[in-house]
Amino acid sequence: MASFSRIENFQVKTNQAFLDKAAALEPVLNKRVIRPERLITVEENPYHEAVVHEAAEMSELPKMSFGKGDKVIFDFGDHQVGYVSFTAVPVGSHYDAPAYLRMKFAEIPSELLEDSEDYDGWLSRSWIQEDTLHLDILPSAVHLPRRYAFRYMQIEVLDTSPKYSLTLRNIYCDYVSAVEMNVVEPLNSDDELLNRMDRVSIKTLMDCMQSVFEDGVKRDRRLWLGDLRLQARANYETFRNYDMVKRCLYLFAGMTFEDGRIGACFFHEPDLRVDDTYLMDYALFFGPTLCDYYEASGDLETLKELYPQAMEQIDICWDTMLDDRKIVIDKGDEFWCFLDWGEGLNKQAGAQAVLIYTMRYAIRMANVLGDQERIRKTEEQMEILKAAALENFWDEKQKLFVSGENRQVSWATQIWMILARVFDKEKSRELILHTMQVNPRIRMVTPYMYHHYMDALIRCGEDELALEEMKRYWGEMILDGADTFWELYNPYNKHESPYGSSMVNSYCHAWSCTPTYLLRKFYRKNGKI
Amino acid sequence: MASFSRIENFQVKTNQAFLDKAAALEPVLNKRVIRPERLITVEENPYHEAVVHEAAEMSELPKMSFGKGDKVIFDFGDHQVGYVSFTAVPVGSHYDAPAYLRMKFAEIPSELLEDSEDYDGWLSRSWIQEDTLHLDILPSAVHLPRRYAFRYMQIEVLDTSPKYSLTLRNIYCDYVSAVEMNVVEPLNSDDELLNRMDRVSIKTLMDCMQSVFEDGVKRDRRLWLGDLRLQARANYETFRNYDMVKRCLYLFAGMTFEDGRIGACFFHEPDLRVDDTYLMDYALFFGPTLCDYYEASGDLETLKELYPQAMEQIDICWDTMLDDRKIVIDKGDEFWCFLDWGEGLNKQAGAQAVLIYTMRYAIRMANVLGDQERIRKTEEQMEILKAAALENFWDEKQKLFVSGENRQVSWATQIWMILARVFDKEKSRELILHTMQVNPRIRMVTPYMYHHYMDALIRCGEDELALEEMKRYWGEMILDGADTFWELYNPYNKHESPYGSSMVNSYCHAWSCTPTYLLRKFYRKNGKI
Repeated sequence: MASFSRIENFQVKTNQAFLDKAAALEPVLNKRVIRPERLITVEENPYHEAVVHEAAEMSELPKMSFGKGDKVIFDFGDHQVGYVSFTAVPVGSHYDAPAYLRMKFAEIPSELLEDSEDYDGWLSRSWIQEDTLHLDILPSAVHLPRRYAFRYMQIEVLDTSPKYSLTLRNIYCDYVSAVEMNVVEPLNSDDELLNRMDRVSIKTLMDCMQSVFEDGVKRDRRLWLGDLRLQARANYETFRNYDMVKRCLYLFAGMTFEDGRIGACFFHEPDLRVDDTYLMDYALFFGPTLCDYYEASGDLETLKELYPQAMEQIDICWDTMLDDRKIVIDKGDEFWCFLDWGEGLNKQAGAQAVLIYTMRYAIRMANVLGDQERIRKTEEQMEILKAAALENFWDEKQKLFVSGENRQVSWATQIWMILARVFDKEKSRELILHTMQVNPRIRMVTPYMYHHYMDALIRCGEDELALEEMKRYWGEMILDGADTFWELYNPYNKHESPYGSSMVNSYCHAWSCTPTYLLRKFYRKNGKI
Repeated sequence: MASFSRIENFQVKTNQAFLDKAAALEPVLNKRVIRPERLITVEENPYHEAVVHEAAEMSELPKMSFGKGDKVIFDFGDHQVGYVSFTAVPVGSHYDAPAYLRMKFAEIPSELLEDSEDYDGWLSRSWIQEDTLHLDILPSAVHLPRRYAFRYMQIEVLDTSPKYSLTLRNIYCDYVSAVEMNVVEPLNSDDELLNRMDRVSIKTLMDCMQSVFEDGVKRDRRLWLGDLRLQARANYETFRNYDMVKRCLYLFAGMTFEDGRIGACFFHEPDLRVDDTYLMDYALFFGPTLCDYYEASGDLETLKELYPQAMEQIDICWDTMLDDRKIVIDKGDEFWCFLDWGEGLNKQAGAQAVLIYTMRYAIRMANVLGDQERIRKTEEQMEILKAAALENFWDEKQKLFVSGENRQVSWATQIWMILARVFDKEKSRELILHTMQVNPRIRMVTPYMYHHYMDALIRCGEDELALEEMKRYWGEMILDGADTFWELYNPYNKHESPYGSSMVNSYCHAWSCTPTYLLRKFYRKNGKI
């Protein structure tokens, strides 16, 4: 199932003053030189898992030379985002032919076992981090022009010539990020796994904080509104870089669909441009993201300036996305609402819940700005939507919410109904515990959806359970070797990909970075870590 | 059979003043912008030949867009050496993934039908002119950093994304050469095929005149002494760029083997360095090349300065390469003497002939410089070598020269014995005609060897026959589609390669450029064209 939208003759509405404001907030990236820590080999074990062996210390590299067919893998010790340089020096006779290299960059070791020739997913194969290079003049100080996301770099010598081979020297990565790790206090809990989860969360977020909040530094490499909302929350607890959130809010507000709808995703290269993708939940999240930003930063001016557009997103949904019963019209297989990846998830009830959820934030903002008319109207609308949700999606027999014509039961639907507060806290608690017991087959796939599951548990007062589930999910990812948190993680199917192949999966994906937010905000408050 | 030499701890002798002289003569390259003339497709016909079809005029390009899997081939109308630029502009939605391209450059159409994955020759696969490229930001003005030799450029879109495709604009090649075609008068004979042979010769030479006389602009791309000798001869009849010959002579003289032997090949990048390859015939040709240079340019100073080293090459061979019978010691399968590519050619008798041939040029130079002692000594040595050649290599029964322990009969041996003037003109004529009748199975493979065949025919007074043979060989190459003359051409086996695969064959190879020299020098003198 390929999920994307494409609009012919896409027309946009531009607010140049907003775009200028966003452009003025473009960060200067910090650079840090990172050198590889060791040479490794990667093997597949009988369980089809990648196993790393240390091959040599870096101090042995100058003594090694590489000829046709030789491979060497550098382990940079942690996940990196940046620009790699190295020097190739020939040994033997004078080089009499170019050196021909293939470089592979891998966030996790198993990527090195995959053959890109086998790729047949629906996302572009151009995301696979592999490049070939001819060096016509040797020695050659190579500065690879592309930014890579990786911990492991493999150099394969496709050929030198029978007369010479290569030595490799001075390999390093110019790591780039808009923020620096040393501004963040470590968590210092007694639980080492929680400390690691916190640290990996922050590293994930840091790697993705570039010119904008990128969703993933290997793939997509751009600003998505759904991801931004979670990144911003983690950022308030850690780097507290308010300007980057502000920049991103002004980007989304500065160029929209012609009818005022905010795009799901925004391009910042080569110039600023909204994508022709509308996702109902993502557009609605503009409001909660703005509200969070105001509450964290106290920046009233921005709240005032962007509030109308946040409200407009709700009004558009109210006017165009509902049927006579006041429930969201199911657009089925179209790419119209995200919620989660995962085969076959019906989005109708979840979209309804997101709309209700968003309205609560709208009221919070309206309260700050004293917009009584909006408060009244929104409260009224919320009640109508909640009633319609109960009427149409609640299955009293199953004690679960259903979605779509086929009355599908999914985790996502229950979780969003809880976050929408369709039920009170106690009834929500019953629902989540019942959901866990039933364990609907339409499960959660992404850490993005898992975040909302945690959020729902906390809403239900199940903080301890949330902590347990976090350990079972993000903790398990760490035990599976994550240096940064992954875009996709299904403990029941670790090779799952919504893209038709795991080769383009992203292993440093910002929507996975929320454990630091959850831990620091909810658990520190409870004095439990 | 892999033919190369590699010396551990290779030591050289340097004459820095000579190298400085060579460096000062480095040419400034002329640049000219060349644009493709049309779009083509290439197909294989049932005879495994590449057939070109015109696909579109260039004016249609702006209307065309290319997505995943699409290929486009640009025909630049003639052979080019240079740097290619183009602009890739996305169409459709905003590009949401890098564009991933593979470029192939082909001197002849059949190269586009070959799959580089199948290459398993012994020369480096790095010579195959193929590169991949990720464009992370679009539109992108691409300036490919490598120099290519080609007439045809194929761009294959390995992927864009489902959301966009590419248009291609402003494609051009910055053609580079040290010389300009307009300084050469056209041949203007009545025979159109001869005019074309002359023009293709000159284009071949021009393309190979870069920082030095390169042997081939696709492969090797460096100075070989055997090639230089023929390039210089063609150059005296056409571009008359004496400085480039002088530069190359000083390079070879400026850095030699430690014992004074001149290398077969010289590198000029990244700095000046003789290769660790000694070929007896190539080293000896330093003398004839110097002699030709003096006779063409009148540069007595250079003759005086380099004459001792030319003599030294002969003395080294006299002292070290002969056995008690005064015949060259056969080094069998070692890479010790070139003469020609071709499986199984024995070099012993040919090497003997080249030594005798070289001595005649030594005497010519000694005459200019009044070196009576050298004249006396060389004449004496020549007679000894000729007598030994007749004694040991002449087979009276076959009326042919033989070579090696197995008394091999080859074209090359007869031709070099004729050029060595072991026989007088009339007896040489009988020999060449007899050779043509017998047609020894060890044939000629390269235009380099064919040149010496032409030279031998002319020596025998068979000018008309030489013209016929030239048409049959270089003329046939033109009918087979040569825009520049090829490194290898065996009319009996058109896919032959000494490298284990024709993929690394060079199709603009300067040792093939001598028809212009032969036509202009010998035939114009006879008033026959």
